Formats: sequence, structure tokens, C-alpha cells
Amino acid sequence: MRPALLALLVAAALPALAVAADEAQKPRTTQELLDASQPSDWRALDPASTLYLELATGRVVIELAPAFAPQHVANIRTLAHEGYWNGMSINRSQDNFVVQWGDPAEEGQPRKPLGDAKAHLPAEFERDAAGLDFHALPDRDGWAPEVGFADGFPAARDPAEGKAWLAHCYGAVGAGRDVAADSSDGTELYVVDGQSPRQLDRNITLVGRVVEGMELLSVLPRGTGPLGFYEDAAQRVPIKAIRLAADVPEAQRTKLEVLRTGTPLFDAVVESRRNRRDDWYKRPAGHIDLCNVTLPTREPPAH
Amino acid sequence: MRPALLALLVAAALPALAVAADEAQKPRTTQELLDASQPSDWRALDPASTLYLELATGRVVIELAPAFAPQHVANIRTLAHEGYWNGMSINRSQDNFVVQWGDPAEEGQPRKPLGDAKAHLPAEFERDAAGLDFHALPDRDGWAPEVGFADGFPAARDPAEGKAWLAHCYGAVGAGRDVAADSSDGTELYVVDGQSPRQLDRNITLVGRVVEGMELLSVLPRGTGPLGFYEDAAQRVPIKAIRLAADVPEAQRTKLEVLRTGTPLFDAVVESRRNRRDDWYKRPAGHIDLCNVTLPTREPPAH
Repeated sequence: MRPALLALLVAAALPALAVAADEAQKPRTTQELLDASQPSDWRALDPASTLYLELATGRVVIELAPAFAPQHVANIRTLAHEGYWNGMSINRSQDNFVVQWGDPAEEGQPRKPLGDAKAHLPAEFERDAAGLDFHALPDRDGWAPEVGFADGFPAARDPAEGKAWLAHCYGAVGAGRDVAADSSDGTELYVVDGQSPRQLDRNITLVGRVVEGMELLSVLPRGTGPLGFYEDAAQRVPIKAIRLAADVPEAQRTKLEVLRTGTPLFDAVVESRRNRRDDWYKRPAGHIDLCNVTLPTREPPAH
Repeated sequence: MRPALLALLVAAALPALAVAADEAQKPRTTQELLDASQPSDWRALDPASTLYLELATGRVVIELAPAFAPQHVANIRTLAHEGYWNGMSINRSQDNFVVQWGDPAEEGQPRKPLGDAKAHLPAEFERDAAGLDFHALPDRDGWAPEVGFADGFPAARDPAEGKAWLAHCYGAVGAGRDVAADSSDGTELYVVDGQSPRQLDRNITLVGRVVEGMELLSVLPRGTGPLGFYEDAAQRVPIKAIRLAADVPEAQRTKLEVLRTGTPLFDAVVESRRNRRDDWYKRPAGHIDLCNVTLPTREPPAH
């Protein structure tokens, strides 16, 4: 293989070493840290807060964030449980921004009934910071006084205002709205698939994040209409189903674990990204932006 | 159309108004500013520094940056002029990171001869800041002491060290290298198509940026091999040709103008993105990251 952009392969090929005494102070790469992780460093997703978006190309796994958007998440659970999105489509793909799905009915056309879901929800742009297990990153952020992770989600906090909110990083899932702040009902969902549009933070309700399967969304052809909407109905991408994992037989669920945040291992992983220590990097950055921290996942190890 | 994520359509539909005296102080949206732009606010691309990457799906237009990477750009001009990449392929697509093209020959296999291009180039990770028309953004950046635009490129500067360098924003084009800093020859080029990987700044030579056609690269199926390389040769994406615009008959060149940076209008555009003033935004951010500033382009107006 020709010269690759990153020498991550080198790091990935290193065996998980028992750390000898004279090596204990040596900074370790992300892969070395993960290889040395313990079972308690990982968590499974809660099936009641996990959505499966089923496309012809495969499954996208979404973790919902009831701690940040409880009313939207409750509505989304109801919509998924009742099969609201099954047979609908992804209607929008705007380059370096978002994909979006929902009822493709044009304005003035009849919309699909919401069933037991609520037609009106409050804006859930932020929440009280109190009671949230927020773990700040060491670096300063330009968009918010503090950024870090809360319950596995990239988030921000303003200690002076006592508020916290989810951040628009790659893979963030939000509830589209009209001009009115409280005009989202959770039926119209978007996923960020470009440079983090942090200007949306505290302006729209984020409901979760994609944990697996982003590569099925990010490659969708860009729509040529305004805002990246597909101009022809035939261009829309069919959604086979959106289901709550709890409604899916256990044997059909995706086996997946996510690295816990707020642990010493996670801090070490962040540090390994702030200062890359493999041979390829000549000048470690000494910094990382919130949305440059990727959250490792894995298949659960066989028992 | 259903509630859209952004109400940009509202702004786009506003006519270009002559600014009345009592409206002069009213902040204007990006679209209003562009509608009121003058011909001198725009520039054409230099055909000697413009590459056309021709794919089956269309043309990607790349502006080269000889002010930052003169030796790499010289080599790339030679390679394009001699048709080095014609009939080669895009060999890598890694989600939320880069696409990359070049000679797909495996290690140990014969490589395509470089013709008149040099086989060895120095690393061009940074340059002297002196003599560069650097225009700083008002906001602080975490990765560099100063960020802004230089000759239309997103860039960073360290006044203490007297150095400047191009930034890895969406659309940045760089020269892949091996572990040695000076191991790039300009044949292996990558394009950033995810969250800005600024940790690469000053670690690899950037040679330019995509000005038009990112949506042809960002949708390429992700490779399933390590680093996103395609595992089967059949998955590679053929390159019809990469040509220097100067080598293309004028009638076949892409008519395109780019907004100048370092002008009062550009400052106003940046401010309109730092604080969005349309009805959709409830809380303007009061901040923008370098890589969230998009550089407007347009078809030259008819004379």
C-alpha cells in the first residue's frame, strides 16, 4: 500500500503490552490504551434509548439523550414504537452539514397522523447543569465557557448561568423545527455529517447521536434543491424502519459497547488525541476541540 | 416543504435592497451582504494555480496555494501537465476524515514514472509569516495563536515564531506522506471531508483547497480496509483526468469567482456568520471557528 496519510496502522499493529515499570511513564497511543482497557471501562447501550434506523444499505444505531431532551425522546420512542417512520424517506442531504428525514409531504398536503405522539413539544435547547455528571475537557472552547462529556455525549456548560446543552458534533441527531422555537415535534430528525455547526447549539433541540453507521448517511447523494432537499421524489432514500431497540428481539439487536466518559481511561484517551505520540506526528497539537474527540465503540468481547 | 432545519431560504428570498439611511446600522444577513457586493469584492482563479479533477460525475475545482507550498505546487503542475493522474483512481475514503488518490500500486509493485516531476521534495508544513497578507479573525482559536485568511485560504499564524501555515478545514487538499516528514512528492493527494482535523496542521504539507465540487468527493463510498482504503480494486473511483486549468481551452474552463478575503465586505460576512440575524436563530453565537467560515463563490455575472 502506498504512503498513507496517517500511520495509525503502525499503532494498531502494536500488541497490548503489560506495562513494565520503566515504561509506565511513557505516553501511550489511543490504541494501546484501548487494548489495555478493562470491562468496566465500557458500557452497553440502553435498549429503551437506542434507535435503529434501517436502510437498504444497513443499520444506523442512534443513542437517544433523555437526560437532555426528555420530552422529545419520549415522543420519538412513541413514534418509533408505532412505526411512524417506516416506509418514509430521507429527504435532504446538504453537503458539509446534515441529512434529514421525516414526512415528505409538501406544505399544504396532508401529513401522516402522529398516533399517540404529541403534536406539540417545548423547546429543549438546554437543561439545568445541576445533577448532570459533566466532565470538562482541559482545553478552552470558543463557543461555550466549558465543553466536555456528559453521560457519553459531547456537551457544553455555562457555570454562570447554570445551564448545560448538547453540542453539534459530527453524528449529532436533532429535531428539525420551523422559525418558532417550540415548533419541533420529533418527527423531523437531522444528523450532522460535516464540520461541526456549533452555531446551532442552544438554538435547536438535540436528541441524541449516531453511535454506529454514520458512513451509511454521510455518503448519501447531496440534494440539488434549496437546503439540500431532493428535488425529485425518486431521489429520496427509503427508510425501511426506525425501531426502538427495546422493540427488537434481542437476537436481532446490534451488539455494541461504548467507551465510558468521565473515567481515568477516557482522560488518557483524550490526552492521547491532544498529543499524538506515534512516529508519524512531528508536532503534537497540545489541544483538542470537543468535536475532534471520537468516542470508541467495540463489539463486546466473547465471554 | 416540511419545517426545514435552517430558515436560510427566508434570507435568500430577500431582494437586494438599496440601504436606506435608517437601515444602515441594521446588521445584514450573509445573503444581503453578497447581494450588495461590488465586482471588486470578487476575484477569478488563476488558471496556472487551478486544478480540474475530472470524475465520471463531474468536475472538482481545486485552487493551489503556491504561496504556502511552492515546491509541491510546482511538482503538481508538472504532474498535471504531463497527465500523471489520468486513468488513476481515488483509492481511499475514510468517513469523517479524507478521500485520497494516487498510484494504487501496492508496496513493492512498480510505480508509474514521475516524468519531469521531482521524486523528492522538502516538507512545506509552514512558511515565514513575513510578506504574507494575513487577515486575522476576531475570535480565539484553540489550535493556534492566530487564525484567519491569507490570499483566500484558511490559515494560522504564530507571531512569536514568525510562522504561518494553512489549516486543515473541510475541502483542504494535502500531499500524503510516509513517516518521514519529507516523504511526500505531491502524487498522493488527499481532501478533508469531515470535521476539521486541525491536529494535522504543521504535520503535513497542504497544497490548496477545493473551491467547487466537494459534493462529488464527500459522497464516495467509504472503504472498508484500514484507513478507509478500498479493499477491492473494483471499488476504486476512476479519475478521468487531472488537468491544470491553464492547459484547458478557455471555453472549457469553469467560470467561477471567489469572494476576496481581507476586505470590509468579507469582515461583514464573517460577522454575519458569528451572529446570525435571521428570524430562525434565537441565540447568535457571538463566535466562529476558522473552519466554520465558508468562502462564497459565484458564476461571474454576465457583462
